[in-house]
Amino acid sequence: MRFTTEQRLADGVREREFTLDDRIPGILWTPASASEPAPLILLGHPGGLPRMYPRLVARAQGCVEQGFAAATIELPGGGERPASAAAEQARADLRRALAAGEPVADEVVDRLVLPLVEKAAPEWRAALDALLALPGVGGPVGYAGGVISIGVRLAVVEPRIVAALLFAGSFVPRAIVAEARRITIPLHVLLQWDDEGNDRQMALDLFDALGSAEKTLHANMGGHTGVPWFEGEAANRFFARHLKAGPPAASANPGERTPPSQ
Amino acid sequence: MRFTTEQRLADGVREREFTLDDRIPGILWTPASASEPAPLILLGHPGGLPRMYPRLVARAQGCVEQGFAAATIELPGGGERPASAAAEQARADLRRALAAGEPVADEVVDRLVLPLVEKAAPEWRAALDALLALPGVGGPVGYAGGVISIGVRLAVVEPRIVAALLFAGSFVPRAIVAEARRITIPLHVLLQWDDEGNDRQMALDLFDALGSAEKTLHANMGGHTGVPWFEGEAANRFFARHLKAGPPAASANPGERTPPSQ
Repeated sequence: MRFTTEQRLADGVREREFTLDDRIPGILWTPASASEPAPLILLGHPGGLPRMYPRLVARAQGCVEQGFAAATIELPGGGERPASAAAEQARADLRRALAAGEPVADEVVDRLVLPLVEKAAPEWRAALDALLALPGVGGPVGYAGGVISIGVRLAVVEPRIVAALLFAGSFVPRAIVAEARRITIPLHVLLQWDDEGNDRQMALDLFDALGSAEKTLHANMGGHTGVPWFEGEAANRFFARHLKAGPPAASANPGERTPPSQ
Repeated sequence: MRFTTEQRLADGVREREFTLDDRIPGILWTPASASEPAPLILLGHPGGLPRMYPRLVARAQGCVEQGFAAATIELPGGGERPASAAAEQARADLRRALAAGEPVADEVVDRLVLPLVEKAAPEWRAALDALLALPGVGGPVGYAGGVISIGVRLAVVEPRIVAALLFAGSFVPRAIVAEARRITIPLHVLLQWDDEGNDRQMALDLFDALGSAEKTLHANMGGHTGVPWFEGEAANRFFARHLKAGPPAASANPGERTPPSQ
């Protein structure tokens, strides 16, 4: 891992771009004045760091304000990384089916997503190796965001990830749904009820399949990018519960912790 | 409204039992040392105040800690209020269908729930008149809890209620589902994914039917009474956003308010 740029953002955030294995771009955000290693949150995204940067840096600032470090890497085929002809073909097949209003064949989803997961998951794990070796970055680790299939794979295979926030998506290969049943870490799933690019029932079915005993679904109105601002706070609280030591702040008072059930 | 008992609970909570119209028992919880009127949260429940008291008082303490007043009244036929022969018959028919593993007929649900809603909603509104006339209790008002059909009715007809937390239930008359489409206030819906007494798909369908532009579903694992403790905090934040004046605490910082979308 080689750092290529460094800058201070507002609000005491230190941003460093890096290159992993001289071929995978990434960004690390840490508290500018950290006294002890900050638990790390990996920020998932659909690929294309330059395009995703504004949303990623805003999410990262939210993480750092809460005492976390945040990091992301470019996906295979995303941004300036070389495209895969097979992935481009699968993407074209997917778009054609969607434009025609036809159901998307399982084999198209498999061709699109499975090779991406196979390539990306080891890269995120390698990034984790490098990031956790840095001063100022510590464990435990969380994963937050899409691509949900990558999040599922990492939640299954990477023991350093102890909690994950997943953004619901419907183009999930059947093999990944099967894998989802093996997840045991706490999960927080976001679903946009009217997501133009996702099938609601498939997203609910995937939520049902997730194996974790603690899993929470937050569904909100609106389309893919319409997640309400208060979900950012909810995400921070989820990670605070699972990545920070000690009992939750409310534990001193049983009344406050009581569920608002009937 | 006539107060019958008063006591101080731990944590600065003042609890007063009252009788409305000399026939409807109720309980009011307020901050013991309030300087200005506290926004009121009505606590819904399935009926039977003596049985529900432990859970209600815990929820009320959570409300008061956050600066709210909380109040509840007994449902028609609940606790020591006279039972309705028709309601008892409908309940017996429901239990018979469930025990036999048969689908519950719409007309049974209608017979069970609609008269309850017709009787209860005006009582809650009358309670609101009396409660809001008290010093220390103010608007705006929230409704939290089941019975979801009563919550739907109140959300539609009572303009002083500006936000509602509803506990998903599946035995909702078709007429109430139709009414749900007319709700416009912000809603926060809790669903227990494996609720032994509720049909998940019916609960999701009702959530879909709710007319509000801002509605959020929180689904958690477990049965009817297994709502996780952190949902109490989420409920408090929902009501703080909608019942308290001024921008949310996080508004000063755009980063913190950014959604954790892809």
